[in-house]
Amino acid sequence: MTVDVLTFGETMAVLRATTPGPLRLARSLDLALAGAESTVAIGLSRLGHRARWVGRVGADEFGALVVERLLAERVDVVAHEDPAAPTGLLVREQRTADLARVAYYRAGSAGSRLSPDDLREPLRDGARVLLVSGITPALSDTARAATEAAVAHAVAHGWAVCLDVNHRSKLWTREEASDVLTPLAAVATTVFGDQSELDLVGGRESLLAKGVGDVVTKRGAEGAETTTPTGHWATSAAPTTVTDVIGAGDAFVAGYLSALLDGLGPAERLARGTAVAATAIATTGDWEGLPTRAELLTLHGETKR
Amino acid sequence: MTVDVLTFGETMAVLRATTPGPLRLARSLDLALAGAESTVAIGLSRLGHRARWVGRVGADEFGALVVERLLAERVDVVAHEDPAAPTGLLVREQRTADLARVAYYRAGSAGSRLSPDDLREPLRDGARVLLVSGITPALSDTARAATEAAVAHAVAHGWAVCLDVNHRSKLWTREEASDVLTPLAAVATTVFGDQSELDLVGGRESLLAKGVGDVVTKRGAEGAETTTPTGHWATSAAPTTVTDVIGAGDAFVAGYLSALLDGLGPAERLARGTAVAATAIATTGDWEGLPTRAELLTLHGETKR
Amino acid sequence: MTVDVLTFGETMAVLRATTPGPLRLARSLDLALAGAESTVAIGLSRLGHRARWVGRVGADEFGALVVERLLAERVDVVAHEDPAAPTGLLVREQRTADLARVAYYRAGSAGSRLSPDDLREPLRDGARVLLVSGITPALSDTARAATEAAVAHAVAHGWAVCLDVNHRSKLWTREEASDVLTPLAAVATTVFGDQSELDLVGGRESLLAKGVGDVVTKRGAEGAETTTPTGHWATSAAPTTVTDVIGAGDAFVAGYLSALLDGLGPAERLARGTAVAATAIATTGDWEGLPTRAELLTLHGETKR
Amino acid sequence: MTVDVLTFGETMAVLRATTPGPLRLARSLDLALAGAESTVAIGLSRLGHRARWVGRVGADEFGALVVERLLAERVDVVAHEDPAAPTGLLVREQRTADLARVAYYRAGSAGSRLSPDDLREPLRDGARVLLVSGITPALSDTARAATEAAVAHAVAHGWAVCLDVNHRSKLWTREEASDVLTPLAAVATTVFGDQSELDLVGGRESLLAKGVGDVVTKRGAEGAETTTPTGHWATSAAPTTVTDVIGAGDAFVAGYLSALLDGLGPAERLARGTAVAATAIATTGDWEGLPTRAELLTLHGETKR
Amino acid sequence: MTVDVLTFGETMAVLRATTPGPLRLARSLDLALAGAESTVAIGLSRLGHRARWVGRVGADEFGALVVERLLAERVDVVAHEDPAAPTGLLVREQRTADLARVAYYRAGSAGSRLSPDDLREPLRDGARVLLVSGITPALSDTARAATEAAVAHAVAHGWAVCLDVNHRSKLWTREEASDVLTPLAAVATTVFGDQSELDLVGGRESLLAKGVGDVVTKRGAEGAETTTPTGHWATSAAPTTVTDVIGAGDAFVAGYLSALLDGLGPAERLARGTAVAATAIATTGDWEGLPTRAELLTLHGETKR
Amino acid sequence: MTVDVLTFGETMAVLRATTPGPLRLARSLDLALAGAESTVAIGLSRLGHRARWVGRVGADEFGALVVERLLAERVDVVAHEDPAAPTGLLVREQRTADLARVAYYRAGSAGSRLSPDDLREPLRDGARVLLVSGITPALSDTARAATEAAVAHAVAHGWAVCLDVNHRSKLWTREEASDVLTPLAAVATTVFGDQSELDLVGGRESLLAKGVGDVVTKRGAEGAETTTPTGHWATSAAPTTVTDVIGAGDAFVAGYLSALLDGLGPAERLARGTAVAATAIATTGDWEGLPTRAELLTLHGETKR
Repeated sequence: MTVDVLTFGETMAVLRATTPGPLRLARSLDLALAGAESTVAIGLSRLGHRARWVGRVGADEFGALVVERLLAERVDVVAHEDPAAPTGLLVREQRTADLARVAYYRAGSAGSRLSPDDLREPLRDGARVLLVSGITPALSDTARAATEAAVAHAVAHGWAVCLDVNHRSKLWTREEASDVLTPLAAVATTVFGDQSELDLVGGRESLLAKGVGDVVTKRGAEGAETTTPTGHWATSAAPTTVTDVIGAGDAFVAGYLSALLDGLGPAERLARGTAVAATAIATTGDWEGLPTRAELLTLHGETKR
Repeated sequence: MTVDVLTFGETMAVLRATTPGPLRLARSLDLALAGAESTVAIGLSRLGHRARWVGRVGADEFGALVVERLLAERVDVVAHEDPAAPTGLLVREQRTADLARVAYYRAGSAGSRLSPDDLREPLRDGARVLLVSGITPALSDTARAATEAAVAHAVAHGWAVCLDVNHRSKLWTREEASDVLTPLAAVATTVFGDQSELDLVGGRESLLAKGVGDVVTKRGAEGAETTTPTGHWATSAAPTTVTDVIGAGDAFVAGYLSALLDGLGPAERLARGTAVAATAIATTGDWEGLPTRAELLTLHGETKR
Repeated sequence: MTVDVLTFGETMAVLRATTPGPLRLARSLDLALAGAESTVAIGLSRLGHRARWVGRVGADEFGALVVERLLAERVDVVAHEDPAAPTGLLVREQRTADLARVAYYRAGSAGSRLSPDDLREPLRDGARVLLVSGITPALSDTARAATEAAVAHAVAHGWAVCLDVNHRSKLWTREEASDVLTPLAAVATTVFGDQSELDLVGGRESLLAKGVGDVVTKRGAEGAETTTPTGHWATSAAPTTVTDVIGAGDAFVAGYLSALLDGLGPAERLARGTAVAATAIATTGDWEGLPTRAELLTLHGETKR
Repeated sequence: MTVDVLTFGETMAVLRATTPGPLRLARSLDLALAGAESTVAIGLSRLGHRARWVGRVGADEFGALVVERLLAERVDVVAHEDPAAPTGLLVREQRTADLARVAYYRAGSAGSRLSPDDLREPLRDGARVLLVSGITPALSDTARAATEAAVAHAVAHGWAVCLDVNHRSKLWTREEASDVLTPLAAVATTVFGDQSELDLVGGRESLLAKGVGDVVTKRGAEGAETTTPTGHWATSAAPTTVTDVIGAGDAFVAGYLSALLDGLGPAERLARGTAVAATAIATTGDWEGLPTRAELLTLHGETKR
Repeated sequence: MTVDVLTFGETMAVLRATTPGPLRLARSLDLALAGAESTVAIGLSRLGHRARWVGRVGADEFGALVVERLLAERVDVVAHEDPAAPTGLLVREQRTADLARVAYYRAGSAGSRLSPDDLREPLRDGARVLLVSGITPALSDTARAATEAAVAHAVAHGWAVCLDVNHRSKLWTREEASDVLTPLAAVATTVFGDQSELDLVGGRESLLAKGVGDVVTKRGAEGAETTTPTGHWATSAAPTTVTDVIGAGDAFVAGYLSALLDGLGPAERLARGTAVAATAIATTGDWEGLPTRAELLTLHGETKR
Repeated sequence: MTVDVLTFGETMAVLRATTPGPLRLARSLDLALAGAESTVAIGLSRLGHRARWVGRVGADEFGALVVERLLAERVDVVAHEDPAAPTGLLVREQRTADLARVAYYRAGSAGSRLSPDDLREPLRDGARVLLVSGITPALSDTARAATEAAVAHAVAHGWAVCLDVNHRSKLWTREEASDVLTPLAAVATTVFGDQSELDLVGGRESLLAKGVGDVVTKRGAEGAETTTPTGHWATSAAPTTVTDVIGAGDAFVAGYLSALLDGLGPAERLARGTAVAATAIATTGDWEGLPTRAELLTLHGETKR
């Protein structure tokens, strides 16, 4: 079955401290899942699009947790169960009200062992958009190969290719990332990143010069902007009470892509991206607060009590 | 025994999500009680007034929860236990940090079966003030009849009649509400509402023209104002850290009525109303944070640590 | 797609007290889902069978909770969203360590409005086994009609028909239940019940005489037994530490049907039924502890630590 | 107003660890109230009797906690608010599954400052039964004087006098307790205690010889027995799953007194005492699980699910 | 062993409500420890200094809680276990989001029984800085004598003497405090206080005139300033999201003293004090959020995610 | 400083599910620490012995958690902070009330990188007893070398050498374990294991023949027994309510060694071992419930309430 959006990557179990303070003083941690690509997939699915997520998980309870949640969200899941490696783990400390710190138990994880073979069938089944995160090629040599093969396939078949740079400094240096991601960005149709991430793949002007159709700058609390060959659009962030900023960037991408799939123009894409992000950060958790299509309509219309 | 304030209505068990996010992802819900009139009664009782609440509850644990809490608060409770209907239930989702959504399980509930008979004895026992909420006549035909009988009795016996419009769009339309509440407002001595609610019962000028002595506009974070035949007074909201805005309007009414019972003028009534509301919204829960008379004095005098 | 087992009924949101004591003293309630048929469907799905569940839910968060969990469990869900009625609610009090009491908010619920139309397509798609619970025909006239139509269809097409009597005294009397369920039992291939429930549909001997192939007596802590035209088999319950007995009967049915689908004989069916039940009652919750196929193999072989 | 039972003593706030282990490792403690006499008063009130409790509390939140719970339970509360002393505090560690240890913060507490004056009016108002706990006279000189005055008043007015010996070794020695309690026991109509406590006030034979009409031995898991001038009755404990044994003795006294007030004979008194105790220990908390009159009837009749 | 900083005082177990609202409605309280001097000692120890804390605790679990936490924090603990008095207790209500109220169970506590003897050996062992809180001399006559002896010893041996005025109005009046603390302040090298507290010990000018080398004004959200014979320095508070302001003053003192021990000048001392305070108040709890030396370096450099 | 007992190994952070059921359904996990050797060290320290634990931890919060707890327990901690590897993690699922399952994130962990160098100084400082667990040599080549070096050193210096076989089948096979542990057992003075573990190192008779002075069989709920050249002693387990059996074996070893250090004979050693184990398993957690020396005396003498 052809889907609207195909994405792939590593989704981990996440253990989150619920109260600000040093992790060593925590008494219990909340259990959930975390992965940039699966967050976007959930966001798209809630907005009514068909999203397929491909990845590897361990033959363990944390892998089951990941798969079951994506199934519940009606994401089309292609989860390869790896008998030889565990599901990765992310431990998130809320050191202060303003600062989250993360520790990974993902070296050698099932998710990092993603390979080109894992994507073969999903690529054959087709998609309108391929969404690639810059995290995946940093996980392992096979994951990088898988990423490059997917982009090549999408380009060859005329799909839209969206790259979210997502630089993770714990996984690789800017130089390493730049070497791998710049060629991918050059062939993308849409590139997402904050200012520093866009610079890492050559900068906005260079990307447009190479033919990228849409260079989107995520500016956090300041909003977002996009530049296309024909113009420049900007929006401020939607006003909201901030509960948990983690996942805001992925929520924005989900909203932006949703509008793209609906054939909307740059201003509407930015508007939906910031609306989805605003809803997401006004709740606890990375993906939990993502709005459904119905909520997208009502969240502003509905009267607060 | 004659009381200071007589009120009546439906008080339900409430199940509240404690973390912002979609209710379907909640793992547990907090159990409490909710009812506009009982919140005012608790507020008045804590401030040292004798408040009587009349209502129906089911012969079940949720009914016991309602009655026991009101007893604990020293409210004079006249609770008719209905063997044939359950206590109503309100489920409150905190969809985002800024938006609460509610679902009711109150169709056919014990509370909605309130009837004129239930009020006969409490009306005979007397009160200085009758407090009527615009929610009650929306619950059922018998509840509307009870409301109308109560107002008629109070008017006939020269009690003050305070009407809080409290339009609930899930229960009836503005047109339906207007038909029922406008005649009640016309004979009231004090009418409370936000701008839109006051319009629903004819608007401020019309009410004053009909002889209402005190038309009070609740303006939320912007404060409150009152108009009487002799003048207009306004106050801003008392500064506070907002924890939970639900119940703020009822808290304001409790404070305002308390000052009225103490014989204070419009400015002092507004001041106490906003002070009580400020204390209430700086805590979690509809009624939990309402101040005692002693706290009313000390909460500003007492040095924060 | 033809499935292994087709079942249908009402699945509600359940609010459970976590500590023994009167519900009115509870501070919070756990949120989950509950439904005899969906518990069996989850059990079958975890054991590797294709199970389809058909039902109605409200257009609300509790309905979403039900559907999302079933999707996560890989149950094939046919959930009709009813715009005019809420998802039913079950409140469960653990009055003492030994006694659970329930209150229903299911009158007029979406689930009770199940109708023959809702089953038309799933029946056409086919199944090897139709599993019917005696709860469903007690919910409403349309639900009874749907049940009768489903059984008639299954008989006409030569499917196995399994009836779990499941008498709920809060929904109807023994006489009412007997009138409706006895004809259904008469055409079933397998009938489940405790001694009293089997008596309600005519008793073991009568059922066998009418041609029921398998009359299974659930005897709780004493185990289970089955009688077929060719013999009688009995098993004691598997030894376990009891955590939560609710759902034990449904777990037993899931295990028994699983063995039936695998073509196993009466003794093996009883053995798997009691093994699945033992695993389920050694955990908290109705369905949470149901074993996977892999766990069925390892739970006894695996060394405790 | 004359009540059925008048009792008095110290009720404290209690902070309870919820998990077995050393208290120093606990992360949070549950907040409730504890007092032998108030537990009996709650038990009697739930069974439909008019019970009055007299005591002192501090002008603080813990005092409010005590009073509000008793009001909620419909106990007739005469709570003297002591501006000069705090409400006492009891910290309860569940050191192991089998062993609870307590620490008191009650030296100089408001409750221990109970005086004869505090009882003057309640004694004048009358009661059918005076219930005295052997804890109260150990609290302070004034509390002992109050106890002695109350017993003298009751004897003089022909009320029944029930003494529960309740020896607390942290408050006084057996010798000290014996000196004070033996004379009180001698004039009582009913004396409760375990074997060792009855010995402390002279032993069963001595008490009967002095004219005590009813000497009741609490034997914990072994049940209870009573001896009167005309005979001896014994009962075993009602079977139940034990959740929390604390408060069992007080629950037994409540049940026994309830039957006494209903005019029942020794066997029925023992039966109700053990039934009430069984219900109480099958829930968490000292008083939370005490049955209502309705539950007394249904808890055995109602089918477990 | 000579330490960097010697301090002494009473550290209590603290029971904290976790949700804003009246304490009487709380269901559970968090258990931790609280003491101004031990908070400073923890802060200094985390920043790499050797801090010794001397005090008395009861022979109970709360005493063990205090000692074990300080050991875990690598504070050099000299805890005299008092067999005759319990560890003090502090109950903290979060009445509203903006107002915490405290109740003490510390009359006659072990901590208040601190005596000159308890300090003899620690004083002999030596320290670079003696840190004295104005709370300690308010606890008892012996605690005052111990404080005065410690200051005299420190002055005699040429240690730096830092006094944090810390006026507690629940323990003594301003006049009582002034009589005791003014002479101590006069011989100190550094005095900390808010404006009102500095006035209580004579005021800034007077202190400088008497030879105090460093008069530090804590100005809360407005920052801090210090005056020495050679100049005046001020700093604003470091920007942060406020989670829990309690302990901010002690955190500031820890940071300020840390810089003093590192030989830094007034501006750097103020900077570190406000940085440590900012980190502490952005977490829950008095001492939990205090930064380590490594965190002091990274908390601003580390990129938020 | 010479200590009573020197031990070493890997202590991990542990994340434990608090409710029985599949881990993937857990919402939060409790955070603690786990390690056989550190549990014994805590047990010995609480009983008043000087115990030193040597190990490696990551430069992370979980490492800090391990070290801080051991410091709090007054264990002499020699913790090498490994900048290049994280602290190991153990995830414990309570699949059913009777079955715990574990998953490790310890491959390449800091703890597994223990090397002979890490032990050099602690060995030089001396000890009366060296306690070796059979887990440590399974962690890595360097950990095995460290273990062998430690045993050789202890033998050479005439210390007692106690080996707890502790076979972990997730780390190595019985054959691998036997090859490494049999030579170590041969030179030990005391060997602990269950029947199967003792067989793995040659069996009781063989060990005694090789000169082991004390072969102790742990028999779980059946108790324990020991054989020495001069006789055989056995004891049944101390009666207790079982809360959490994990850690029972380590608790037994701590009690046994404590008696050995006190110079007691085989019967007393078994008695203390089973008493300590009984106390530990009557609480939640591996090490939390271990008794202090004072509790060892009072836990049976103190009257249960």
